[in-house]
Parts: sequence; C-alpha cells; structure tokens
Amino acid sequence: MINSPETKALLFDVFGTVVDWRNGVARELRPFLSRHALAVDAFELADAWRRQYSPAMEEIRSGRRPFVRLDVLHRENLDKALAECGINPGSISADELDELNFCWHRLDPWPDSVEGLLRLKRRFMIAPLSNGNIRLMLDMAKRAALPWDAILGAELVRAYKPSPQVYTATVEILGLNPADVCMVAAHNADLAAARRCGLTTAFIVRPTEHGPAQTSDLHAEQAWDFAATDLNDLATQLGCPT
Amino acid sequence: MINSPETKALLFDVFGTVVDWRNGVARELRPFLSRHALAVDAFELADAWRRQYSPAMEEIRSGRRPFVRLDVLHRENLDKALAECGINPGSISADELDELNFCWHRLDPWPDSVEGLLRLKRRFMIAPLSNGNIRLMLDMAKRAALPWDAILGAELVRAYKPSPQVYTATVEILGLNPADVCMVAAHNADLAAARRCGLTTAFIVRPTEHGPAQTSDLHAEQAWDFAATDLNDLATQLGCPT
Repeated sequence: MINSPETKALLFDVFGTVVDWRNGVARELRPFLSRHALAVDAFELADAWRRQYSPAMEEIRSGRRPFVRLDVLHRENLDKALAECGINPGSISADELDELNFCWHRLDPWPDSVEGLLRLKRRFMIAPLSNGNIRLMLDMAKRAALPWDAILGAELVRAYKPSPQVYTATVEILGLNPADVCMVAAHNADLAAARRCGLTTAFIVRPTEHGPAQTSDLHAEQAWDFAATDLNDLATQLGCPT
Repeated sequence: MINSPETKALLFDVFGTVVDWRNGVARELRPFLSRHALAVDAFELADAWRRQYSPAMEEIRSGRRPFVRLDVLHRENLDKALAECGINPGSISADELDELNFCWHRLDPWPDSVEGLLRLKRRFMIAPLSNGNIRLMLDMAKRAALPWDAILGAELVRAYKPSPQVYTATVEILGLNPADVCMVAAHNADLAAARRCGLTTAFIVRPTEHGPAQTSDLHAEQAWDFAATDLNDLATQLGCPT
C-alpha cells in the first residue's frame, strides 16, 4: 500500500472555481460606468474584459512574449475591453483605470467556498494554483478570508495554465508525487491538463460562472476522480467533518 | 504626504525570529540519539547542524553551486554534523535520516509569535522572508498555526539571504515600494541587507536563540526603525490592538 496514491494537497483554480469573478467585476464596473455616464451594461463589459484573458496569456504560453504577471495583462485587457464596448480608454485617467483594474483583487467567494476550504484545510494542504499573481491572490484571500496554506501558481513558475510546467513545477515545490496532489477546478480543460501531468482531479460545477446563459463546463467531460456540486460537497466526499 | 512611506507589508525572518529552532531540533534529536545509544548531547548536535547552515548557502550565494532548496542543504548538513560529532552517517538508514531532516518543519514558535502575528495580520500583509523552502514553511505554519498571508522567500527568488535580490524581488512580487515593506528579524545582518535594499527594519531581540550563552544579536547594532522585545511588543509599537 505504501506506493498507492494518497491525496496530501489540493490545488485550486480560483477564478470561477472559488470566487465569482463575473458578479464581482460587474459590481465594481457599475459605479465606474455610472460616474462616466457610459451607457454600457456592466456584465457586457465584464464579459468583454474576461474574453481578453485567454488570448493575452496565449501570447506568453506560446513564447511570443516573456512572462508578465496577470495584473499587467488585466490592465492591458481593460483598455481593449473598453474599446470593444465603444469607450475610449484614453478619455479616462490612467490612475482611475489602474485602480479599477484591482477589482480582480476584490472578488467575493461563492457561498460554499470559505466553509469548504476550512474543512478541507484540516486534512489537506490547500493552495491556489491560479493564473492570478501572488499579490492578487493575497489581497483576495485577505479580504475574503480564504484560508490558504500557501499561495502557489503561475507567478512562481513564470508560466500560465494549462502549460504543463505550471502543474509539474508546483508539485515539485510541494515535494510530492503528482498522484498525491489533486487539482480542483470548475473547468474541464484545466483538469485535463493536470491529469496529463499525473495529478488527480476534482470537478466542481459552477453553472453560473458565465451568467445564467452559460453553456460551457456544465458537466464533467471526463471521468474525473471526483465531481462535486461545490467545495462543501467535495469536503464531504473526501471525508472531512463539518 | 502621498509619497511618504507607509508600511503595508511585514516580512519575517523565521528561524530564530518566529520559531525556536534550537530547542525544536534538539527535541527531535534526543529520541534519535537515545534510540541509537549515541552519547552525544542533543544541543551539541543541533548546534553542529546549524553551524553548517551559512557555509552551505554561501556556496549558492557565491555562484559556485546552482540553487537548491534548504531541505536539500539541511540533509547534506545533517551528514556533516553527525560526522563532526563522531557519528558515521552511513551507519544509519537513509530513510531515518531523511525523516529526521524534516524536524526543521516541526519547530515551535516562540510564546509570543502566534498572538503577535495575528495582531499584525489585521493591519498588514504578513509573510515569511526566510531561507526555508516553501514546503518547509508550509508544514511549519500548518503545525504551529502561523497565520501567514502568503509564503514568500528564498525559493521563489532562487537565492539566499542576504543576497539583495531576495529582498528586492520579494518587494516587486508584492507590487510595493521598498520603503513600504518592513523586514522583521532577530539578526542584525539580515536587517542590514534589507536596509541596503531600501526596506524599513524591525529588530526583535531573541537572546536565547543560540542557548543561554548566546553572545550575538543581543542588541540592535544600528538604529533600526523599530526595536522590540517580541512580536507582541512590535504589534503594540505599530498600533495594532490586542
């Protein structure tokens, strides 16, 4: 039995899996849009901002651009999203946009997240394995009381998920075998990449991450090791007392 | 006033400043020595082990050796310390020495550390800036309830204090100005290096880190920005309520 995998650490995707980025970003865009009398729907701008996320990281994943942290990409993406919504970013002070950019540091957790993480933390090491940078994750955790044991992720490895080195280098930092580490995510593609690196996998369904009309990631697309309705359900499945 | 420094983050040396490594290591060496009927004093072996610490890092600081994490150096140093105390490390199973090596993950905090950190955490970002690797710091924090906001330090930067890039790269990760970050340590040399990088400094006196006959670091050797008797005293000086 000593070679059988035994989960020791859980690594969490954060945007969408632990926190509700869409409502959090829209909450901060609303007063911004109102202050500038801009007739743009806050969710429309939030979605436009998020659509720039993956293409911006792809520049780095592909090697066309050296690594920069997500705060930098988010700030560039904000200009693009504003333009896409018909707003000239040059018409707004850079200081104000810099401050608005930090709304990603102030996202609220899903209702089950803090309780689920506290239960899981008693039995496992828990850490984010997010594309968000360390300061972003730190600010978010401090505000939302996310009880991480450490902040791991893209910035440590200087690469973005789903590049395999993000998973393998993080497992190496933890001094564990890949099979002893479980990736927890609401996104099938993240889990598929983790599984290719030998990690175990847990799917959390977050059916409104992209709003009420969400069509992606509504179901587990592979037989993941665990599939749960939320982080409390995952804690129960992993035998963590309430 | 907007350009005046305002402390936002506190970075902590850990071995000696936050935890009592000498008693913790000796506590685990005692049953080991007894089990092998070795007539060596546990403190003597702990001190011999620790004496290898700085020379081992110096190989990496000097560029003569690529970065390896502290767990690796500690394991090599254990063999040297055993030999220095007249024990042939080859006479003991590698598995047992590997396990003994993790005693550095199980050190107890000084009596004031947890309360002091909890008070400081309400007002500041708090993180270790230790030469200990991430997994070491994670295990220690989980066992001892050290409430870090993130685990920063040597392994992220792949360099050992007091090399300046450890301080400057950590400040950069936090997205802060050096003057907004305070290094907290029981070691004048650590604070001197941090000050050369522009950080503010807080000296904590730990007069028995090296045992009752300690002669070093008994006093602040420069006019550090703060000097405190323990972490609770520092919290009080920084205006953190009890």
